[in-house]
Amino acid sequence: MELTVYLAGEIHSDWREQLKSKAEARKLPLKFIAPQTNHDRSDDIGEEILGAQPGPYYKDDAASDINNFRTQIMLQKADVVIALFGEKYRQWNTAMDASAAISMGKPTIIIRPESLIHPLKELSNKANVTVETVDQAIEVLKYVYD
Amino acid sequence: MELTVYLAGEIHSDWREQLKSKAEARKLPLKFIAPQTNHDRSDDIGEEILGAQPGPYYKDDAASDINNFRTQIMLQKADVVIALFGEKYRQWNTAMDASAAISMGKPTIIIRPESLIHPLKELSNKANVTVETVDQAIEVLKYVYD
Amino acid sequence: MELTVYLAGEIHSDWREQLKSKAEARKLPLKFIAPQTNHDRSDDIGEEILGAQPGPYYKDDAASDINNFRTQIMLQKADVVIALFGEKYRQWNTAMDASAAISMGKPTIIIRPESLIHPLKELSNKANVTVETVDQAIEVLKYVYD
Amino acid sequence: MELTVYLAGEIHSDWREQLKSKAEARKLPLKFIAPQTNHDRSDDIGEEILGAQPGPYYKDDAASDINNFRTQIMLQKADVVIALFGEKYRQWNTAMDASAAISMGKPTIIIRPESLIHPLKELSNKANVTVETVDQAIEVLKYVYD
Amino acid sequence: MELTVYLAGEIHSDWREQLKSKAEARKLPLKFIAPQTNHDRSDDIGEEILGAQPGPYYKDDAASDINNFRTQIMLQKADVVIALFGEKYRQWNTAMDASAAISMGKPTIIIRPESLIHPLKELSNKANVTVETVDQAIEVLKYVYD
Amino acid sequence: MELTVYLAGEIHSDWREQLKSKAEARKLPLKFIAPQTNHDRSDDIGEEILGAQPGPYYKDDAASDINNFRTQIMLQKADVVIALFGEKYRQWNTAMDASAAISMGKPTIIIRPESLIHPLKELSNKANVTVETVDQAIEVLKYVYD
Amino acid sequence: MELTVYLAGEIHSDWREQLKSKAEARKLPLKFIAPQTNHDRSDDIGEEILGAQPGPYYKDDAASDINNFRTQIMLQKADVVIALFGEKYRQWNTAMDASAAISMGKPTIIIRPESLIHPLKELSNKANVTVETVDQAIEVLKYVYD
Amino acid sequence: MELTVYLAGEIHSDWREQLKSKAEARKLPLKFIAPQTNHDRSDDIGEEILGAQPGPYYKDDAASDINNFRTQIMLQKADVVIALFGEKYRQWNTAMDASAAISMGKPTIIIRPESLIHPLKELSNKANVTVETVDQAIEVLKYVYD
Repeated sequence: MELTVYLAGEIHSDWREQLKSKAEARKLPLKFIAPQTNHDRSDDIGEEILGAQPGPYYKDDAASDINNFRTQIMLQKADVVIALFGEKYRQWNTAMDASAAISMGKPTIIIRPESLIHPLKELSNKANVTVETVDQAIEVLKYVYD
Repeated sequence: MELTVYLAGEIHSDWREQLKSKAEARKLPLKFIAPQTNHDRSDDIGEEILGAQPGPYYKDDAASDINNFRTQIMLQKADVVIALFGEKYRQWNTAMDASAAISMGKPTIIIRPESLIHPLKELSNKANVTVETVDQAIEVLKYVYD
Repeated sequence: MELTVYLAGEIHSDWREQLKSKAEARKLPLKFIAPQTNHDRSDDIGEEILGAQPGPYYKDDAASDINNFRTQIMLQKADVVIALFGEKYRQWNTAMDASAAISMGKPTIIIRPESLIHPLKELSNKANVTVETVDQAIEVLKYVYD
Repeated sequence: MELTVYLAGEIHSDWREQLKSKAEARKLPLKFIAPQTNHDRSDDIGEEILGAQPGPYYKDDAASDINNFRTQIMLQKADVVIALFGEKYRQWNTAMDASAAISMGKPTIIIRPESLIHPLKELSNKANVTVETVDQAIEVLKYVYD
Repeated sequence: MELTVYLAGEIHSDWREQLKSKAEARKLPLKFIAPQTNHDRSDDIGEEILGAQPGPYYKDDAASDINNFRTQIMLQKADVVIALFGEKYRQWNTAMDASAAISMGKPTIIIRPESLIHPLKELSNKANVTVETVDQAIEVLKYVYD
Repeated sequence: MELTVYLAGEIHSDWREQLKSKAEARKLPLKFIAPQTNHDRSDDIGEEILGAQPGPYYKDDAASDINNFRTQIMLQKADVVIALFGEKYRQWNTAMDASAAISMGKPTIIIRPESLIHPLKELSNKANVTVETVDQAIEVLKYVYD
Repeated sequence: MELTVYLAGEIHSDWREQLKSKAEARKLPLKFIAPQTNHDRSDDIGEEILGAQPGPYYKDDAASDINNFRTQIMLQKADVVIALFGEKYRQWNTAMDASAAISMGKPTIIIRPESLIHPLKELSNKANVTVETVDQAIEVLKYVYD
Repeated sequence: MELTVYLAGEIHSDWREQLKSKAEARKLPLKFIAPQTNHDRSDDIGEEILGAQPGPYYKDDAASDINNFRTQIMLQKADVVIALFGEKYRQWNTAMDASAAISMGKPTIIIRPESLIHPLKELSNKANVTVETVDQAIEVLKYVYD
């Protein structure tokens, strides 16, 4: 049983690479897909494709058209969603993706540090499993195959 | 055509009361429903009903069981969802509710200050309308009846 | 059995008023809802609420945010959709609304002149009934109560 | 991640071939499907299979039975829909397909010339992304794999 | 708890009237809706509204456009569906309505004489309850309120 | 906001009456619906309506046709489901109803004694809230209106 | 684009074999699935697996449990459904399968002789295409690939 | 037509192995998936991954997060669900899984001993087929391919 796993969330650390190599080390039949993790590319993609916009609001709206197009495809293809929250930033995209995934019935894991227990309590409660580390997330995935 | 409007988001200002009185002044046939806006009550409701929990993580999880029960009922009853983001706090509940509403096909308005354009760009793009003030939100609702 | 009927389509003639008065004359328990039929208002609503936009594309996009918000509410409330195509204009909104209604499982009537049989053939084929006049549409609605 | 892309819209230019060859040049793992692009075949298919009909209305209705059968299969198989509007014709089929695709939750790109911004504003607003050229559409698809 | 009951099936006997008067006698809070039970009206409704058609096939297709429009509205409004099969006729409409109702998740009762047990066995098996008389059907409805 | 609450589960105690009188005492705008709570009636309803069956298996199957018809109507009408497990019996109907309710997206409360924590752990985890007493359940419902 | 085609309907002629060999001759990438076409087997399967039943009603009910299990799997796997009605028998299973397929959004072709136009008019009207011969059905399928 | 079969239920006997070897002996193209059948592992998985919990309730809740994550993936992947009830234990997980499967439209077989006919009557009635032995279940699966 091969599963496609969408990795939502933080794009300023290498957690996706860690997760992939741990999955490979355990020979889990997982295929990973992800949002654009190059932050500048993700911010600029609207103007890159649609041309210069008349200001930052319009630049942002053009970029999010294309980022949302990408995310919608990937959430629909995913069998499982993992969303990682880091300690910095507001990460409303991550919350949006996790909530959309749960609403679509996708089995969902949240990874967040202990410091975020309180502000994420309702979202954690709606997700299937909440863990603190990438290692724990990989153990949950591994358990599916045990 | 009476509509039920769920008012997600910030609970530290009186924006819900403002919206309601403006709707009444315009005689719009709207019924408003909302999350628990007493912050302490919302944090304590788990222990209040289920008894003392063995620590803050468990207290939070118990409270969110009950808060999510309430929100699920209200989102299902709502014809329209309005989500207001303020400048403080992480407000992941607000993002979670707005994203769930959009995923459920609920027509959705986001209210957020100009300063939050960038971090909210993907969520704004998925919502129907994004405005900056309660007055603008009420104008959008009024337009439905014009 | 009261039914709510959404009247999509042409906004340059008084067909909605004709339909309503014929329904009243027949004492059919129908409630009618409709898009904004003031063309200028519908084009300007974005700038009216959100303020001046940097050009016609952005003005149009802002207006359609709000028009789509209105239409989404009304399609969800409707038990029946009637879409009228006139001989002028491209009327892609009408086609969009009729197709969305059919995709949502709403029983749908199309009213169009004989001259439009060919270009509307696939959409007519997907709708439940296609007629040429408002009088025929009202006869179809009346038949539901016979 | 292979994606199936349904190419709705204009059948009087070679835009589908352009898109395919550009996708191949970029080695994107895309499979393209499309409506019948031979206009006469599409108009005549009803009488071709079901025999002569008693007039143009009936000929059109018979043809659209079969064209709609084909489109329904393809929209259900598609992961992504691209709809191209040209400057001529009313193209209500294109609007119908794009609206049905969006209602079915298919990530959707619209391609239209600048001259059609205004009449397509509500449909563009509901689609994920609207561009003006086939090259821009291919850049959006490529971004999914970057 | 008021329920709306759609009475599909045979139109050559007065079973609907029997059922209604028995429901009234028991003071059950039921509202009944039904297809057009005037057989000629149901056959002629297409030509009545759309004008003379070029032959019996086209007359039938026009009539069924309008009959299906009516049935679609009523099935969507129904909380419960009762379908009665008599011993004569092929009654494919009745089978179509019962199967559509079951597919839509509507709680469904079939009434059929003992002689039809075998040919209706798969449909009976998919319905919730199969009985032989109107009296039994009313007892099933009454049980809901006991 | 009036809510309809389906009370699944144990039929050998008066917990439904307790819940109703507590709801009334608190003036909560709740309407309660329930399965047949007369155990013998529920076991005999098949033979009562359909006549004697050829053995206990067939008697049970006939009864469950009609009990499932009733439950399906009620689950669809419910805004909230409460399922109470007692210490005796296998109560697979209660588990079936609670699981169906959760699968249908109904906000769900489980009431069970401490002794059943372990065997009900997965079902409790899928429900919104699990409590031990009727008083706690009423407090959860009251919180929706606070 | 490979398609799975479920062949509902008449089991007393070799129309399925004809269709398959014509599809092969045209090299259409179609996979065909079908109900049990051995009539006796289909009638006896309940007793064959579950043991002797106390009479014909119970024998039929046991058989239809298993036949419906098979059909539900196949309808869910199908991309396209073809239902053939012959001139004999009541064929309520065929009507049930066609109606279920249409309700599930499956693109559907009906094959029926001219003599059945009238009794099948509503079902034909809901299906995508109605033809009179296997040859016409194969032409419709072939058109999907042209 | 390959099918994926989820084997819910009893984990204290080797019925899954029996079923698999019988399927292989008959060369049925079936792929089997199952819950964690090591009872201790399933009870301990929460603490194994998330660390020691403050008591048995919390240990159980942590374990069920992860068990439900696994089950949700598997039910979504399954084409068919088989649920086996043994004579011991309360087996509420089995009832929960069978009911969820039925609610999701999965074709479902229940295996249970004669002694459980009465307590399982409503669940059996909602499932497609109920049998008493693994051999009968394999015969039902085989019939799909005959």
